[in-house]
Amino acid sequence: MPAGGHPHAAPTPAHYGMIVRQAEPVNLEMPFGSLDQFVTRTEDFFVRCHFPIPEITRDRWRLRIRGLVQRPVELAFDELQAMPASSVTATLECAGNGRVFLSPSVGGAQWERGAVGNAVWTGVPLGYVLERAGLPAEASEIILTGTDEGEIEAPPRPGGRIRYARSLPLGKATGDVLLAWQMNGADLTPAHGFPLRAIVPGWYGMASVKWLSDIIVTDRPFQGYYQSVDYAYWQRSTGEPSLVPITELHVKSQIARPGPCERVPRGGAYLVRGAAWTCEAEIVRVEVSTDGGLHWSDARLGRHTDRHAWRLWEYDWAIPREPGRTTLMTRAHDSKGRTQPAKRDPDRGAYMINEVLGLDVMVQ
Amino acid sequence: MPAGGHPHAAPTPAHYGMIVRQAEPVNLEMPFGSLDQFVTRTEDFFVRCHFPIPEITRDRWRLRIRGLVQRPVELAFDELQAMPASSVTATLECAGNGRVFLSPSVGGAQWERGAVGNAVWTGVPLGYVLERAGLPAEASEIILTGTDEGEIEAPPRPGGRIRYARSLPLGKATGDVLLAWQMNGADLTPAHGFPLRAIVPGWYGMASVKWLSDIIVTDRPFQGYYQSVDYAYWQRSTGEPSLVPITELHVKSQIARPGPCERVPRGGAYLVRGAAWTCEAEIVRVEVSTDGGLHWSDARLGRHTDRHAWRLWEYDWAIPREPGRTTLMTRAHDSKGRTQPAKRDPDRGAYMINEVLGLDVMVQ
Repeated sequence: MPAGGHPHAAPTPAHYGMIVRQAEPVNLEMPFGSLDQFVTRTEDFFVRCHFPIPEITRDRWRLRIRGLVQRPVELAFDELQAMPASSVTATLECAGNGRVFLSPSVGGAQWERGAVGNAVWTGVPLGYVLERAGLPAEASEIILTGTDEGEIEAPPRPGGRIRYARSLPLGKATGDVLLAWQMNGADLTPAHGFPLRAIVPGWYGMASVKWLSDIIVTDRPFQGYYQSVDYAYWQRSTGEPSLVPITELHVKSQIARPGPCERVPRGGAYLVRGAAWTCEAEIVRVEVSTDGGLHWSDARLGRHTDRHAWRLWEYDWAIPREPGRTTLMTRAHDSKGRTQPAKRDPDRGAYMINEVLGLDVMVQ
Repeated sequence: MPAGGHPHAAPTPAHYGMIVRQAEPVNLEMPFGSLDQFVTRTEDFFVRCHFPIPEITRDRWRLRIRGLVQRPVELAFDELQAMPASSVTATLECAGNGRVFLSPSVGGAQWERGAVGNAVWTGVPLGYVLERAGLPAEASEIILTGTDEGEIEAPPRPGGRIRYARSLPLGKATGDVLLAWQMNGADLTPAHGFPLRAIVPGWYGMASVKWLSDIIVTDRPFQGYYQSVDYAYWQRSTGEPSLVPITELHVKSQIARPGPCERVPRGGAYLVRGAAWTCEAEIVRVEVSTDGGLHWSDARLGRHTDRHAWRLWEYDWAIPREPGRTTLMTRAHDSKGRTQPAKRDPDRGAYMINEVLGLDVMVQ
């Protein structure tokens, strides 16, 4: 490995087997039918980029903690790595995962089911680093900024080049958020945020800022492009629609196999498999319907559970004896009593697609 | 006058002399060259509408105070009018006033200089009405909602029909904000918000919600369409652009006469006139340049001053003896030490146009 560099510093190679949703900036999803284990292999993990992957060398890279702090801190990679590390197994799902199923269709990357993955992330708690800098009483929000940057075309847009940035409320930031330099026991790859990525468990993937370079403490709500225009939705808690940032994952299950329009043998037995996830709770039940939602049966839940990780599930399906099209559906429930909704809330726009979807297969 | 109605309930008549920027919904500006008095006549006052003017009859109209209140309140017009009234002379300027001068040009109503006016508004303080409803300690923001409604076309947009709504921080709402039913001593006209309009002194006009029907108390930041997508701009206080609502007026002066490209006689005397305004401060100085910004002289300030009103000014110009084009400029200063900037901040987008502008006239 070259000094201070990374063995795979170029973003070009090795997306074999991934579905390319956009070539540049690179956006890749896992073929979800290949789901076969609790931890997603790094090379199978979806890649969401808003700008070109920045070329970063470790020895020149710095993490700056600034803004409303008692003492600004600048950390080299070695200093960061010398801090007490911990690991979390966390499922990240892109807020637009499943967008291709929306009708009417919407703009943005046309993700199918594979913009979700579950990995083991290792790093230092964000709260530990914030403590180093010292937070005044008025600190309320933490902005995480990546090294990736570019220009926005469509209005409303900030002028000039901007960097990818998202904020967290102080409580979340000093809670379970990790600044990770490892994914599945190895250095982060360039596509996954080398050398440092925030991991925000329980939130959609857009919060887990890659190529992290700046942590900015502020005393007011941050309304950066990626949480006011993009990755935001209309909430109607007062009756009047209010554009709020997308944050927490919504309870969801997905069928990995069979795949859409798969042909299955009539009268046969089929092991339906998939995964389910939620935010800050356990998946306690996954129901499966093989007749378009008329009848529901419980799936068997996988033994692996982890606070912030998905739960695999499977279901023994006795394929009907009559040929024809049939619709499979699943519905997950979590320990906080939340269930996947039957219908879509139109205010969610192109995001947070967790309503029950039908998957058609051909019995023949 | 019909019982419970209004003599000019139809939005059609009598915009004689006004410049039509959009016919439906109606958007009108004053020909600013006609500025001749401290208080703008109601029929000369600019009209900014986002949706068709709602047809409202007083007897059926109600004002509701709801949300996070100790007791929801519903007020008929007579009940409101029985409350202790006060008056304020306040200048309202549309946040897009002067947009036609921007280069490169931007979308939106192409206001020239006339989307500004100064009127006497009479009504009850918003704070008085909020006290009736009772605010809990956690109340932090007050949403003002109009009766006007429609659909938004361009993304990011809330689905379905929305009403015009803006919010105020609690401190401002319980300060000098008025719920006005009179403008210049007469009932509000339909175009100006009949029967009730919020008047938010010192803020751009978009905060002074017309056809007011709902006051909603909340404990979180409101990011309605008209303060997150529209009437918002990119602020860079942390370095990262953050989309924040437009609020306070910026110090500004405008020349009323001469007008753009007016022909003036060489060697003659010309009384240059105009107005200047700011937020929560007094206009203490207006400078005039008649040579494109090389030399500046002080204008005479008008005797009328009022905390929230503009200040008229005039300047005796000795027109040069040589024919040709010359550029007039003005620059206002306020009692808080704020001055009109020479250059435009591109992050302001299509709003808050208070930079020093040149006005070309022809000496002949």
